[in-house]
Amino acid sequence: MLYVVGHKNPDTDSICSAIVLAHFLNGVPAKLGNINPETEYVLKKFGVMEPETIKSAKGKEIILVDHSEKSQTIDDLEEGKLIGIIDHHKIGISTSEPILYISKSLGSTASIIAELCFKNIMDYIGGENKELKPDLAGLLLSAIISDTILFKSPTTTELDKILAEKLCKIANINNLEEFGMEILKAKSSVGNMAPEEIVSIDYKDFEFNSHKIGIGQVEVIDVKEVEKKKDDILKILNEKLEKEGYELLLFLITDIMKEGSEVLVVGDKETFEKIYGVKLENDTVFLEGVMSRKKQVVPPLEQYYSK
Amino acid sequence: MLYVVGHKNPDTDSICSAIVLAHFLNGVPAKLGNINPETEYVLKKFGVMEPETIKSAKGKEIILVDHSEKSQTIDDLEEGKLIGIIDHHKIGISTSEPILYISKSLGSTASIIAELCFKNIMDYIGGENKELKPDLAGLLLSAIISDTILFKSPTTTELDKILAEKLCKIANINNLEEFGMEILKAKSSVGNMAPEEIVSIDYKDFEFNSHKIGIGQVEVIDVKEVEKKKDDILKILNEKLEKEGYELLLFLITDIMKEGSEVLVVGDKETFEKIYGVKLENDTVFLEGVMSRKKQVVPPLEQYYSK
Repeated sequence: MLYVVGHKNPDTDSICSAIVLAHFLNGVPAKLGNINPETEYVLKKFGVMEPETIKSAKGKEIILVDHSEKSQTIDDLEEGKLIGIIDHHKIGISTSEPILYISKSLGSTASIIAELCFKNIMDYIGGENKELKPDLAGLLLSAIISDTILFKSPTTTELDKILAEKLCKIANINNLEEFGMEILKAKSSVGNMAPEEIVSIDYKDFEFNSHKIGIGQVEVIDVKEVEKKKDDILKILNEKLEKEGYELLLFLITDIMKEGSEVLVVGDKETFEKIYGVKLENDTVFLEGVMSRKKQVVPPLEQYYSK
Repeated sequence: MLYVVGHKNPDTDSICSAIVLAHFLNGVPAKLGNINPETEYVLKKFGVMEPETIKSAKGKEIILVDHSEKSQTIDDLEEGKLIGIIDHHKIGISTSEPILYISKSLGSTASIIAELCFKNIMDYIGGENKELKPDLAGLLLSAIISDTILFKSPTTTELDKILAEKLCKIANINNLEEFGMEILKAKSSVGNMAPEEIVSIDYKDFEFNSHKIGIGQVEVIDVKEVEKKKDDILKILNEKLEKEGYELLLFLITDIMKEGSEVLVVGDKETFEKIYGVKLENDTVFLEGVMSRKKQVVPPLEQYYSK
């Protein structure tokens, strides 16, 4: 049986891409952990069921969506058969055999899937060319909005915007801007969350040349909601660093309105300062214009550690 | 300027894929070394110019075809801008930023390009949807025949055969089988070559978890032509092993008619015997049915060394 699986700590793109792609590939959508409040809001809005959680790849054919890094995928991936990867991140895996790999530098994995739909070339990746129903169009639209932070992220491309407009029509969304703000508000509803939850909501592990780095991110409209919990978050990060043997742990509090991120840094702070050319104050620094982990935070780290 | 570049020690797939893809992407086809006699035959037959040789990626936008491994690509790749990869081998690169990556498990990179042409979706990878002219169809056809050893290699898929039939019509080739044998004969014309040339004709470097491995291959209709030079080839391999610090060097003499390969092994022979479950005699062993380096020789090595 074919499973379409997003990354650990699933976000809206990871869950929605898995659901829609599984539909066209006649497979089963799956997730590797609990969904976040934003994704819950989106699934409820379009009346689509949560994918099942899987713990093992054993005996399964697997297509990964929205990630390729081993550190972000199912633990025993090698027990299953990796068929393909559909992703919009950097290439982060090496395989022992040829597989299907479709990667484009677009704002979301959902954009890649939407493009395959609109071009009517799902058969190009082994799927079926069938109609995109309103509910699934709504999921793809939500994922694009979520991943591009309503087109504010520097990862946004012209194509993302064109695809979103088309998806709006199919999903019967009359006002893209208004709907986008709804999603962002759901994304940002962290006021009542415990600091542990805030840290883990969109957290990813990386391994750069055997250096273990962790990067969490929360995107908020009202930064104050998170800032008052900063000390607690730093404490959690420091505990995590020690217990799990990280070299560096970053947490990005991304201000959607100001279009920048406050970065909380624990671990090898000197290296962080060197890589980004900044000075930390009380373990934090505000990076103007930085909204994308993928495009603005990961590349300098990867380049530094690969030397 | 955009350059479309195949791997070091270019084979027919690498050269023809670069030429045809560059045409559709309005870029420049390039190569990283001298072409082999088979490719020379093919280019002459269809009246197409040899691509220029480039030595550096500096200041260039680069699309790699038919490879992804750093050990097989242009030395200073990081000096240029890697835009994308179109390939049919295992995933062998990690990048610091998202790129275009189109990989399918087909018999040749030319098959991937032919499929994009016939589906009229060159725009999907940023190219122009234009007509495939007979000369370029001939190049793609030749590359498919060469890489699949006229559909005898286990890498061959049904799609490769369907694409080849379509390409035949456009290229005005009346008899696919006959034309295929012409190509294989050109591929096999190693009788007059020096042993050094035979070793380097289709030679690839790999790095598995920091283990340096080299694998050369020659595909012949008449094995005797190469077998009489076996001792010389073993001597060259042993010299190369010592001088360039390999852990293991393999050379495959693939018998197109018998559909199997005699493997010459120097370096860590014990590991080789363990991985493939065979016993060497005079540093060689015949592997029944083994014709594909990519699909049959590399995966067990990669799996062994990645542990």
